[in-house]
Amino acid sequence: MNIRIKWLRNQLNSLKLEGMIISNPVNVRYLTGLSEEGFLIIAPKENIFVTDSRYIESVNRNLTISDEIVAYDSRDLSKYDYESIFSTNDNVGFEEKYVTYEQYKNYLQTYQVNLIETEGLIENARVIKDKEEIENITKACEITDKAFEYIIRNIKEGMTEKEVAFEIEKFMIQNGADGLAFDSIVAFGENTSMPHAVPTDKRIRRGDIIQFDIGCKYKGYCSDFSRVVFVEEVNEEYKQAYEFVLEQQQKLRTQLKDGVNIKTVIKDRETDYNLKNYRVLHAFGHGVGIDIHEKPVLRSKQDYILKENTIIAIEPGIYKEGKFGIRVEDTFLVEKNGCKSLTTSKKDYTVIKLG
Amino acid sequence: MNIRIKWLRNQLNSLKLEGMIISNPVNVRYLTGLSEEGFLIIAPKENIFVTDSRYIESVNRNLTISDEIVAYDSRDLSKYDYESIFSTNDNVGFEEKYVTYEQYKNYLQTYQVNLIETEGLIENARVIKDKEEIENITKACEITDKAFEYIIRNIKEGMTEKEVAFEIEKFMIQNGADGLAFDSIVAFGENTSMPHAVPTDKRIRRGDIIQFDIGCKYKGYCSDFSRVVFVEEVNEEYKQAYEFVLEQQQKLRTQLKDGVNIKTVIKDRETDYNLKNYRVLHAFGHGVGIDIHEKPVLRSKQDYILKENTIIAIEPGIYKEGKFGIRVEDTFLVEKNGCKSLTTSKKDYTVIKLG
Repeated sequence: MNIRIKWLRNQLNSLKLEGMIISNPVNVRYLTGLSEEGFLIIAPKENIFVTDSRYIESVNRNLTISDEIVAYDSRDLSKYDYESIFSTNDNVGFEEKYVTYEQYKNYLQTYQVNLIETEGLIENARVIKDKEEIENITKACEITDKAFEYIIRNIKEGMTEKEVAFEIEKFMIQNGADGLAFDSIVAFGENTSMPHAVPTDKRIRRGDIIQFDIGCKYKGYCSDFSRVVFVEEVNEEYKQAYEFVLEQQQKLRTQLKDGVNIKTVIKDRETDYNLKNYRVLHAFGHGVGIDIHEKPVLRSKQDYILKENTIIAIEPGIYKEGKFGIRVEDTFLVEKNGCKSLTTSKKDYTVIKLG
Repeated sequence: MNIRIKWLRNQLNSLKLEGMIISNPVNVRYLTGLSEEGFLIIAPKENIFVTDSRYIESVNRNLTISDEIVAYDSRDLSKYDYESIFSTNDNVGFEEKYVTYEQYKNYLQTYQVNLIETEGLIENARVIKDKEEIENITKACEITDKAFEYIIRNIKEGMTEKEVAFEIEKFMIQNGADGLAFDSIVAFGENTSMPHAVPTDKRIRRGDIIQFDIGCKYKGYCSDFSRVVFVEEVNEEYKQAYEFVLEQQQKLRTQLKDGVNIKTVIKDRETDYNLKNYRVLHAFGHGVGIDIHEKPVLRSKQDYILKENTIIAIEPGIYKEGKFGIRVEDTFLVEKNGCKSLTTSKKDYTVIKLG
């Protein structure tokens, strides 16, 4: 049996659960490697992947004997088949953060079992990355660094936010990415004041800040990366803000390490923001893995002891409504004594010349 | 108040509900035009959009006075504020197909109301498109047709599935699309036997079928389109299969019209498949709108009277496991006497020459 399913069976055992239904596709992928639509049932007698006729051929190509997973086309399973998977009134775990209220009611009817909340059991396991996962994220980070280096050499007068975003995305795909980790953010000038700006047809102008927030996937694993660059010149207000953001990121990467409580570290940063009268518009970062946003989130409410081999994006930012925003973000590997940066693009003032 | 929220309030009134919580982002966008993260509360006294500090500036830029929606940053709402939105034990609708079991429990605690399932109330309304929606989908279809015309003129020897998909996507974005409607499918040769093939590094070869399944978004609305083309030559087995698929699509577009029950039409098609010993691997089509897959689904289990101004993709396909697949799909507007095709690329044998 594959090692992750073996781990899960042990967990279920100690939680006194007879099985679990896993329907969150990210958790299914984590456990099985499968990215086809479907759901996984860990049952007393076997591991079952239920998919449909669109995917069954592809699933059977991807599973190996050592996975010990039996795949079914849902059309071939009767009401009776479903009821026989568990014994009536077995305690079976489900994903209460993913399953809809309607599905919950359907599960009760389909399986005739007691459904027990598993409180992010698999999500919690996903926090700590193994060697292969770290390698994949490192590779996604390398592609992202290269895309950034490429774009700052190739931005030209008259380009729009959409066009710049597109060039970045093309570069990432052509250089080995499976796809994007999220919709790229490229914002010029006052559009940077919105942390989640969507690229528009706005054209670049002298004096603009450009905010990039980009990432790609490699073998299913994400990178997350933000930089600002300045067009032709940097004014004094931008400089002060940029220095502050860099300083915050530096403090965070030093303080966030194995054994530290996230809450304590983030509270200190919030104090710095308050002293300077900056508003904290979003979390200081988040876990990164198959999902672009995973546990843990870097917030002062997060009472959470950070552990070695967690991968986190650290992204302090400051925003002046209607004027500008500046955010710097890297993907880091948490180690014993601090964070190791997996994205490595430089952070000194990058002033680009148009034309 | 905007016309869709006015409609919703009338519906809630006749369902004896004091309000509704709308958290499905597609439904929020349909009702308000907002694409920022957040949720909409239709409350006895007002319409409330709750977002967070990352989006509040953008939401306030996009809302107008006539929307009659008050936007809040969730941080500015206390436990007491939430409890005051409704009266205790009010009957409040929620989206049981979208809300997770965990959110359902949180809603109960937050609002102190009776939560009532709304059974796809808004999804059902979205089926019938208004003039502007039809215009947007028509425009998305035009861009998709042009992308197909472009790619068949530009496929070259040695290109991979991934590269061809990328060229299509680039063309669509550069020609006015907001983005993709879904991950493009481009499959060569035996990869076409999987309806949901993911583009790989496989290179094109003489004698291959190429399956395209592509679509884009325009002002948030989707197109859906599939074609096969043949590389250098067409063998007899492909020809027979292709003719069958074309004939099925032609029958479907004639029979699917205002007032017809989907079930009846699809049962006839299944009979044709059975007679030829072809397997029905997926639905014959589906509604298209803000979501790429909307109601209604074209299946024989779907007991549903089709109505004018519904937009559907019709996509019969046949698949020989491990050998080949052929699917033809267009996006159609349902009219009084049949379906009008919004994608208009030709369907005769397209045999492309490499090099």
